[in-house]
Amino acid sequence: MERILRVNMTSRTAAFEPMPEAYRNRAGRWLTSSIVHDEVPPTCHPLGPNNKVVFSPGIVTGTASPTSSRISVGGKSPLTGGIKESNAGTGWGRRLARLGIRAIVVEGQPKEKGFWLLKVNARGAELEPADAWTGKRLSEIYPALLTRFGGKEKVNVCAIGVAGEFRMAAAGICFNDQEGRPSRYAGRGGLGAVLGSKGLKAIVVDDSGAKEIPLADKAQFDQGRKKLGAALGAHAITKPKGALNSYGTAVLVNILNEAGGLPTHNFREGRFEGAAKIAGEAIFAGNKERTGAEVYNHACSPGCVIRCSNTWHRSNGSEHTSCIEYESDWAFGANCGIDDLDQIAELNLLCNDYGLDTIETGGTLAVAADGGLWRFGDGKRAIELLHEIGQGTPLGRILGNGAVVTGRAFGVTRVPHVKGQNMPAYEPRAVKGIGMTYAVSTMGADHTSGYTIAPEILGVSGKLDPLNPDKADLARNFQYATAFIDSTGHCLFIAFAILDIASGFEGTVEECNGVLGTKWTMDDVARIGKEVLDLERDFNRKAGFTALDDRLPEFMRTEPLPPHDTVWDIADREIDRVFAS
Amino acid sequence: MERILRVNMTSRTAAFEPMPEAYRNRAGRWLTSSIVHDEVPPTCHPLGPNNKVVFSPGIVTGTASPTSSRISVGGKSPLTGGIKESNAGTGWGRRLARLGIRAIVVEGQPKEKGFWLLKVNARGAELEPADAWTGKRLSEIYPALLTRFGGKEKVNVCAIGVAGEFRMAAAGICFNDQEGRPSRYAGRGGLGAVLGSKGLKAIVVDDSGAKEIPLADKAQFDQGRKKLGAALGAHAITKPKGALNSYGTAVLVNILNEAGGLPTHNFREGRFEGAAKIAGEAIFAGNKERTGAEVYNHACSPGCVIRCSNTWHRSNGSEHTSCIEYESDWAFGANCGIDDLDQIAELNLLCNDYGLDTIETGGTLAVAADGGLWRFGDGKRAIELLHEIGQGTPLGRILGNGAVVTGRAFGVTRVPHVKGQNMPAYEPRAVKGIGMTYAVSTMGADHTSGYTIAPEILGVSGKLDPLNPDKADLARNFQYATAFIDSTGHCLFIAFAILDIASGFEGTVEECNGVLGTKWTMDDVARIGKEVLDLERDFNRKAGFTALDDRLPEFMRTEPLPPHDTVWDIADREIDRVFAS
Repeated sequence: MERILRVNMTSRTAAFEPMPEAYRNRAGRWLTSSIVHDEVPPTCHPLGPNNKVVFSPGIVTGTASPTSSRISVGGKSPLTGGIKESNAGTGWGRRLARLGIRAIVVEGQPKEKGFWLLKVNARGAELEPADAWTGKRLSEIYPALLTRFGGKEKVNVCAIGVAGEFRMAAAGICFNDQEGRPSRYAGRGGLGAVLGSKGLKAIVVDDSGAKEIPLADKAQFDQGRKKLGAALGAHAITKPKGALNSYGTAVLVNILNEAGGLPTHNFREGRFEGAAKIAGEAIFAGNKERTGAEVYNHACSPGCVIRCSNTWHRSNGSEHTSCIEYESDWAFGANCGIDDLDQIAELNLLCNDYGLDTIETGGTLAVAADGGLWRFGDGKRAIELLHEIGQGTPLGRILGNGAVVTGRAFGVTRVPHVKGQNMPAYEPRAVKGIGMTYAVSTMGADHTSGYTIAPEILGVSGKLDPLNPDKADLARNFQYATAFIDSTGHCLFIAFAILDIASGFEGTVEECNGVLGTKWTMDDVARIGKEVLDLERDFNRKAGFTALDDRLPEFMRTEPLPPHDTVWDIADREIDRVFAS
Repeated sequence: MERILRVNMTSRTAAFEPMPEAYRNRAGRWLTSSIVHDEVPPTCHPLGPNNKVVFSPGIVTGTASPTSSRISVGGKSPLTGGIKESNAGTGWGRRLARLGIRAIVVEGQPKEKGFWLLKVNARGAELEPADAWTGKRLSEIYPALLTRFGGKEKVNVCAIGVAGEFRMAAAGICFNDQEGRPSRYAGRGGLGAVLGSKGLKAIVVDDSGAKEIPLADKAQFDQGRKKLGAALGAHAITKPKGALNSYGTAVLVNILNEAGGLPTHNFREGRFEGAAKIAGEAIFAGNKERTGAEVYNHACSPGCVIRCSNTWHRSNGSEHTSCIEYESDWAFGANCGIDDLDQIAELNLLCNDYGLDTIETGGTLAVAADGGLWRFGDGKRAIELLHEIGQGTPLGRILGNGAVVTGRAFGVTRVPHVKGQNMPAYEPRAVKGIGMTYAVSTMGADHTSGYTIAPEILGVSGKLDPLNPDKADLARNFQYATAFIDSTGHCLFIAFAILDIASGFEGTVEECNGVLGTKWTMDDVARIGKEVLDLERDFNRKAGFTALDDRLPEFMRTEPLPPHDTVWDIADREIDRVFAS
């Protein structure tokens, strides 16, 4: 029996409800955005009692489907003021799905000071005081929490770090990976601050005794997962010892640098002199040198066959941090002018430990460099600045609230953001389609809303000229397909394979039909994606957003970006065309 | 010959242009809002090269009309993101008017670091380096600037303080009063930061050799000014040794406290226990005790017959600060829980010296108290916090950027603001009409947009129940009338007299006709006011504002305000009705 767990932080009660009929078949982003749309007043204060945080595993999460352990987290974002869906790969959502819990809805706000921890298991759900777990680094409390509740084989932990306790808008929500590390983040948009505002420090899920997830049509499901698995195993990007498994997402550093689309020094250039020193290939080579072995990447979550999560090792061979994603590597590397992987690794580790989104944090440091707080490339100083955030000093309060607030505090006008969220690792002046995605995304500047980098840079599903401005249809179609994938519980990275290998995409739909008993065809992918986007856009409209929020920053229209020396030249009416119909 | 002085800070040139025919008869707010509307791209970054700062004296400024030396300053606000008009009483605009300069338009932005000073006189206008004047308190540089350029009889100085140099959103633009004090502020909305972003530290105006302002119909003008003067001299609020001349604007402290509408402890209560200790009557009594004489107030600017600008004296009888306006007194007093006039005076002085808007700064301190930075009532700590702003420390950068940024930094959700600007000294839950003004004003929460306190609290132009929510027509009509008054160059305080004494209002219109040769009647007052508001609303709409920006903060709808225990209960549709037609 599928159900929703409603957690009221005002009364500190947790109770199960049946899954509403209106939400039949909805899961993942489709369900979190539905509940946020239907239950959260769009004009409420994001850190006030009327906002909610909603968790939902995807349609196939918890089954034998490959690479499907994403947990979707939704709410109103304190960074953008709009709806936010952020997702992470972790066994946490898988356990939730196996318990038959379609969603957790966290609402209300304690009148008292303090933090609580929510325990969820086959017997029920309850809250207990968690003040003893606060104020500490997550690498300190995760092992203790896992041990206390039965070990990483039995439970997964979701928690916020001190950044979330401080209600900073760059605070993410952390989940442990398969080795128990606090490293898998629903990072973007400040949902960690929303959880902090509700006094909810952690949610521990124990699925002991749970039954297998029921399948409406096992044959259809098995057929689908096999077709998807075959596609993932065959594609050059996703196959074993392929690009992602060998070099992780940081394989993109050299590729984007070559394309002139690697934002450098706070989006001032499209190429970084030190790119090769921080690239995925350099991580692979460095690990080999320091450990004496070829270190291939591991799965961030159960059942992933892509296995793209890397580690970085210290010079003595011990593990330093996991995972240095491309976006984190870029955020602290090229965008901050830092070409030292050890410094980047330390910055990455501190974000994981303090509970921060690496993209917003790196982007904030770059803006702070423009504001005169430090010099680009001075990694030691960047590390000190991250500790300011962790300590909650006044300077840390500025930085922990993201790039726009930091720009405001230090009078910096060159802040590369959309809707208050800092841009990720792809330059819109050099890759026009991703700029369209940034502009129109319901999430603010977000590459995962519609990863047009696939065709524009990687040649996936054809090859498009990144400088060609005719990208409205591309941006729309990719966002619809992405919203569907985000609802299945699959990692977005299956897109590389299923966009190129049609049977893989068919298999993805068949898996869903196998679980739900639906008769979806490929046409339903765009229908469902559109439905999700329509809900999110409706929320944002009611929160006060207009077409004028779908714009890139002013400076990108006038400041040419080397090496192509191009500006952002897509007309506003072309942007507004993306979702006009 | 009327002309416009255009100052380009990119090229550092200043040149005169003829007054465009399209702007015939426009002056003051009517002209600044027209130029901002027509020349500033609404979506530009407020601190970027495309924003402008526009100065314009009013229609009758510089003539023998009483109480008419207001200077209007316009631009796009870094605090609200919308259009901003802020005005001040000072001889500066009078000198500008006498030089035949209808407006100064400051545009562009230097590529180089540094600050410049603009000299304007009968021979022309030119820029000179001003770095030597930066980084100092305004009470240090104003006497030196006045001396350097010929003395306060010959010149007036407009300048920004360090807050403007730091481009803080709470930075105002300062003008000297008749005694040379840096005390008269176009304070609200952060226009000081815009001037700072343009590298313009000061504008010194010398009207030596200027001719009298030409009058199209001297008899009409004289008739008008006499009627207005008679009304001002007769009304209880504006007459010599009347309420304003005796107790200053701080006469309102006891009145608002009595009405339960004096926002206390960051808008938590409507009455302040220490009200009597900080009221205008206490200022009068304290000055008498400390100086041994009854100190009546003085005129802030030439030709003012109301003379409401007070001074506060130290225990040794020496002057401490001028002027402690009601809003400043309240901002640091009731709203911060401080009942010590010496501490309030020091906070006021520091704002004048650092170049800060007292309303935004006091409101920010109150939010900071809720954020745990200090305890309400601890005036010594409040003074230390103001020095943080003056020193530009990280904490100062937060506070200097206003209440919303401070709330964001410290996770405070109770921020009493509209459109990013902190609310002034009247509680909307206790005085509903002023809440309507806050909600719909083009300026963000601003009492001077439509001072409905006059009928709701003071019984001027009839007596309305402050708790009655039927205030849409009142809010609209007051804003139209105010926009007209702000265009004439008159101080808004003439409204007390002219709303009660019809001949005074007629006289105001006749004065304008006398200067311009127009045939305006009372009907033109609303027509012109509407024209101004329409321009401003159009700018805001193009900047992305919607009806959802015309809202009071969420907490005011749910949190009852003692002593009336009322919430903000005016329906959104009623708010939207104000300007619907």
